[in-house]
Amino acid sequence: MATFRKQYVVARHVYSENSFAEDHEKIHRVHKTMQDHVKEYLTCDAKRAKNAALSLLPIIGWMRIYRVREWLLGDVVSGISTGLVAIMQGLAFSLLASLPPSYGLYTAFFPVLTYLFLGTSRHISVGSFPVLSLMVGAVVTRLVPEDRAPANITAFEGLTQDQQRVLVASSVTFLMGIFQLAMGVLQVGFIVVYLSDTLVSSFTTAAAVHILVSQLKFVLGLSVPGLSGPLSIISTLEKIFVQITSTNICDLVMSILIMMIVFIVKELNDIYKAKLPVPIPIEVIMTIVACGVSYGFNFEKRYDVDVVGKMISGYESPIAPSIEVFQESAVEAFPIAIVGFAVAFSVAKVYSIKHDYTIDGNQELIAFGVSNIFGASFRSFAASTALSRTAVQESSGGKTQIAGLISAMMAMIVTVSLGFLLEPLPKSVLGALVIVNLKGMLMQFREILYLWRRDKPECVVWVGTCLGAILLGLDLGLAVGLGVELLTVIFRTQFPRCSVLANIPGTDLYRDRKDYQHIFEPKEVKIFRIPSPIFFANIEFFRDKLIEAVGFNPLRVLRKRNKALRKIRKLLQEKDSHIIERGLGGLFCQTTDDSNMKMEELDLPTDLKGLPFRMDWNAELPADIIVPRVDLHSLILDFSAVSFLDISALKGLKMTLKEFIRVGVDVYIVSCDAYVLEKLHVCMFFDDEILTSMFFPTLHDAMLHTLEKHKEGYSKSCVLADTKL
Amino acid sequence: MATFRKQYVVARHVYSENSFAEDHEKIHRVHKTMQDHVKEYLTCDAKRAKNAALSLLPIIGWMRIYRVREWLLGDVVSGISTGLVAIMQGLAFSLLASLPPSYGLYTAFFPVLTYLFLGTSRHISVGSFPVLSLMVGAVVTRLVPEDRAPANITAFEGLTQDQQRVLVASSVTFLMGIFQLAMGVLQVGFIVVYLSDTLVSSFTTAAAVHILVSQLKFVLGLSVPGLSGPLSIISTLEKIFVQITSTNICDLVMSILIMMIVFIVKELNDIYKAKLPVPIPIEVIMTIVACGVSYGFNFEKRYDVDVVGKMISGYESPIAPSIEVFQESAVEAFPIAIVGFAVAFSVAKVYSIKHDYTIDGNQELIAFGVSNIFGASFRSFAASTALSRTAVQESSGGKTQIAGLISAMMAMIVTVSLGFLLEPLPKSVLGALVIVNLKGMLMQFREILYLWRRDKPECVVWVGTCLGAILLGLDLGLAVGLGVELLTVIFRTQFPRCSVLANIPGTDLYRDRKDYQHIFEPKEVKIFRIPSPIFFANIEFFRDKLIEAVGFNPLRVLRKRNKALRKIRKLLQEKDSHIIERGLGGLFCQTTDDSNMKMEELDLPTDLKGLPFRMDWNAELPADIIVPRVDLHSLILDFSAVSFLDISALKGLKMTLKEFIRVGVDVYIVSCDAYVLEKLHVCMFFDDEILTSMFFPTLHDAMLHTLEKHKEGYSKSCVLADTKL
Repeated sequence: MATFRKQYVVARHVYSENSFAEDHEKIHRVHKTMQDHVKEYLTCDAKRAKNAALSLLPIIGWMRIYRVREWLLGDVVSGISTGLVAIMQGLAFSLLASLPPSYGLYTAFFPVLTYLFLGTSRHISVGSFPVLSLMVGAVVTRLVPEDRAPANITAFEGLTQDQQRVLVASSVTFLMGIFQLAMGVLQVGFIVVYLSDTLVSSFTTAAAVHILVSQLKFVLGLSVPGLSGPLSIISTLEKIFVQITSTNICDLVMSILIMMIVFIVKELNDIYKAKLPVPIPIEVIMTIVACGVSYGFNFEKRYDVDVVGKMISGYESPIAPSIEVFQESAVEAFPIAIVGFAVAFSVAKVYSIKHDYTIDGNQELIAFGVSNIFGASFRSFAASTALSRTAVQESSGGKTQIAGLISAMMAMIVTVSLGFLLEPLPKSVLGALVIVNLKGMLMQFREILYLWRRDKPECVVWVGTCLGAILLGLDLGLAVGLGVELLTVIFRTQFPRCSVLANIPGTDLYRDRKDYQHIFEPKEVKIFRIPSPIFFANIEFFRDKLIEAVGFNPLRVLRKRNKALRKIRKLLQEKDSHIIERGLGGLFCQTTDDSNMKMEELDLPTDLKGLPFRMDWNAELPADIIVPRVDLHSLILDFSAVSFLDISALKGLKMTLKEFIRVGVDVYIVSCDAYVLEKLHVCMFFDDEILTSMFFPTLHDAMLHTLEKHKEGYSKSCVLADTKL
Repeated sequence: MATFRKQYVVARHVYSENSFAEDHEKIHRVHKTMQDHVKEYLTCDAKRAKNAALSLLPIIGWMRIYRVREWLLGDVVSGISTGLVAIMQGLAFSLLASLPPSYGLYTAFFPVLTYLFLGTSRHISVGSFPVLSLMVGAVVTRLVPEDRAPANITAFEGLTQDQQRVLVASSVTFLMGIFQLAMGVLQVGFIVVYLSDTLVSSFTTAAAVHILVSQLKFVLGLSVPGLSGPLSIISTLEKIFVQITSTNICDLVMSILIMMIVFIVKELNDIYKAKLPVPIPIEVIMTIVACGVSYGFNFEKRYDVDVVGKMISGYESPIAPSIEVFQESAVEAFPIAIVGFAVAFSVAKVYSIKHDYTIDGNQELIAFGVSNIFGASFRSFAASTALSRTAVQESSGGKTQIAGLISAMMAMIVTVSLGFLLEPLPKSVLGALVIVNLKGMLMQFREILYLWRRDKPECVVWVGTCLGAILLGLDLGLAVGLGVELLTVIFRTQFPRCSVLANIPGTDLYRDRKDYQHIFEPKEVKIFRIPSPIFFANIEFFRDKLIEAVGFNPLRVLRKRNKALRKIRKLLQEKDSHIIERGLGGLFCQTTDDSNMKMEELDLPTDLKGLPFRMDWNAELPADIIVPRVDLHSLILDFSAVSFLDISALKGLKMTLKEFIRVGVDVYIVSCDAYVLEKLHVCMFFDDEILTSMFFPTLHDAMLHTLEKHKEGYSKSCVLADTKL
């Protein structure tokens, strides 16, 4: 290869961190204390006040730049299309929440009104979301089961079952709103970062399975009580299969027909996306057709088909949430709040990046909190956004929440005056439409294979979360998934691959010695790389790996040396000193008594004072004194990947280093992060054995230093030996 | 300074990872697959079988080396002293478990018998442990409360309250044994690494508070029902204060007296440790004295003092555990199993290091599992070890578990024939002895200050665990503590301090540019250090920090450029090309219509094909086209601390790098770990934009490379400009 190659030439002093600090003075930087931060946070001036007010009412921001001529038409068109979808989804998702369909229309109306003022996203369509509806439904069916008496809640007295359910749903939604508002006020919106893509994908897949199972009863025309709690999915399936013979054929045929048509048309929409001006609104068409057919042939009476039935015309009076329901459902309302926000935020983020404006997580939390509290007061249930509906709103030209407002108006019109048209609609049609829309979510099962090939731990997270959420229910499953996910991070940090490095000849580079054939490794120097942060859970692991790498346990060597030293001292006391010179071997056979030795003393540094000769532990000692050889004079620890240390790690590290130093091994630490070094100082890491002079900026500096030092050492000891002779 | 300084000289090629790989061939290492590991694990030969048998019965190991003459005396002496302590502690800790005192003696006997054969530790004294006794007591008082009817368990029928309690305690112990045995068989003993020193210190402090509160009623001679569950400590204290006026003065005076004497003598023992042959066994003396006084003055009748009372003479028949109790207490038995093992293991480890033999965590789990199952069958309760008792056993000369066997025999003698002597012992004396022994555990409160000064996150873990364990109970508190502890690891990894590096002139070293005054930073090169692993929770954080560091958002720049390019192309189509040469400004004022642009296209690389001129984005563009300036030609990312990457991080990183590459910034990654690089290959990180040639072994290599490349670039463009002119 005759490529032109640039040269790398460096000639400088060999630096230790200490000598480097002498040559290059560090600027003393005053770090802000916690007080400063608090003070800064609490400071208020006119500009900050104005900004705070503006950020609390984002509508002011986008209203000021609203281009009526360009945007209004888009918003109106988009609002009408989104409105149709929102009405359909409202009806269908209220079945997931085990509520009468008209409350789904409430959810498409009330929350939008407040989000309009408070929300920072201009493109999301606020309203029902299937996963959230299902989670609310789980609480509803737990507290007001179909086939048993409802929970013992005083506010239930005198209410019909449906009214009880609405009370539960709106109370849970209210509580969820309180959680969201509180999180927004406390500025903890960042917690959604813990819901990684993998977790969300797995969780929504599990939710799709739950939704599928929950809709089966509508599609088959069976009456199965809604169940919730761990393993409820299995008993629901069991109950369905037990009654499978009483399937309503009319419902089933209609559902299958609708699913097929919708599926095919949606695929066509996808294929001819570029050619069609707008996608064919097949779901709306099918709903209208189904309504007509059902009314015309009187499905309800003739085939005993379960229809939507009496729609409440107009709005009911506001409702106060029940504190007792709060107590019963607090554990479930929290994951609902998290999931609702996480979905809305992630969808909003996609469109904010696309259209280049900023959204504010904490303000979104406040907006959804207030919207849910407001909505719940008017009997609507948990609102977030649905990806499909938001996609319609954005793709049909929606520019701002004006589109959301118009879609809310559509829902209002249906509630107030057109609701009766939907009364003959069979519930199986709604179920079929929900199921056919699960395709995308269920396709996520393919992730398993993708992740398995690339990253096994994440595959474990995916499968664990999904199984957990399917079997234990969505709320517990989310907790399990989060736990597994965070544990994988711990595991990855905890069990990294350590390696022993060696020099690539002719360079200042050091690589894993097992990876290269031609490599320079001075026999008495070991370079050990610690490839991750050190903390309580892996300090022992590193200690073991280090001992394995160097080939001896320094503590054991130290103790053997100290024991040997005692024997020698005893000999020196008992015998004439000339025996030593003649050699100790053979003269001496009684064993010293272990029991009067204090074990603790054995761990102290070997005390060579007062010995009349130079001790060389690697030379041959008298026959009955055996001390393991230590063929190492220097140990270099590569700290470049140690991004933090905790107190346990610090203690363990200090102990280990001392053991090495006490058996005469020089320990060097290289490429240590400036903050880690600072922390070591704060935590009194250094004493008279562990010195700051052990730190070197690079491996090569430390290596040159130790080679130089021990070259001298050897020659000197040779000289000494020579002069002695 | 005239110190002699060594020189650091390196002259070699500038290497990128690619050219380095060309020069230095890597050995192809075949990593073991999971199959190999499984195969290896399942392979069996004679040697492995023998080792497995030996490791299952560690007694064989130490019996073979038993030195009768030297060790037996020590074991016997130690066994007798430990036996006295074990009897005392057995009686006292059975009060913590809310059981009659004689069962404490059972616990000092049965578990020892099996541990003798199965345990790997030669020094720990197996038996009751206060924290564990208290945790068992919490289950006992929950299922068999003093003042209400017991839980609805069929096995309770026909039993007295005490018998019910013994049944509950032994069933919980049995279940705990099953958990421990299962963990041992599954080889998951490593989980105790998650119980860091901080966590254990905090947890035991909280346990001490619980123990203190639970003993108050004995010391004051009050009758307070034992409570358990969250906040029970507050209601217990409330109940005690309500009745404080009915304190039994005799109990109180006796307790205070005993506590004072024991405290003082223990301090003296400490001070004259070196001079005393054995510490004064003050607790045993006080117990004997109290027994005598109580019997002589008939405290029970005369002062209504609560005494130990009727001791069962001899052993009762074995008992079968109750499955119903298992179901009721499974959630509590698991933390009991963990705590029991963790304490025993940590104590055993201390002595194994001291006496230089190895202990095996999984075998210890098996030993304790079997011992607890065996003990529970004979009505004893949860066994582990107590630090104080083990210290007595070791310091009085115990060498092996023979000492434990002898101490068990002592307990047996008391149970079988001397129990009646203990009958007049007031319970308040036992309570006082328990309380005075809490000193060490309560002193751990000082840790708070120590940790606060050194490491705030660990201080939070300490306080959180302690408060959690005090208020919520020990089992829930342990879970909370573990959660907080693991979250701190996540937090530390998640929010590290990023920095921008620059060259220290005259060296190949790079440091935080804010830290040094004289530093070389080429204006158009940025070096960004990522100081921690990258994963789902911090990839966004790094992206933001990176954008902040370089001063522009590459995606926004890219879009602006693409928009500008469209305008220019339109101009070129509409107007003559000479307009371009005359300058575009002023000629042109209609705005292009945003709505017919496809947003997605804006994110693609700028397509400069077909343009009749060279585009220089930083030159002045026509007045109505504004594109942000990019003053950067190279971005170097220091990956030395990136010890792992997950899939989310990989996707995010790829996206970010692409954005930079598309606005014409060369991106280099340096000091990337070999395993991380391998993973990037596996996960298809590279494509036609992200090339493997971006990797360099050191910062200096990348810096030299980019300076060289752009020196050429400049000169060439100058040349081009010149020739044009």
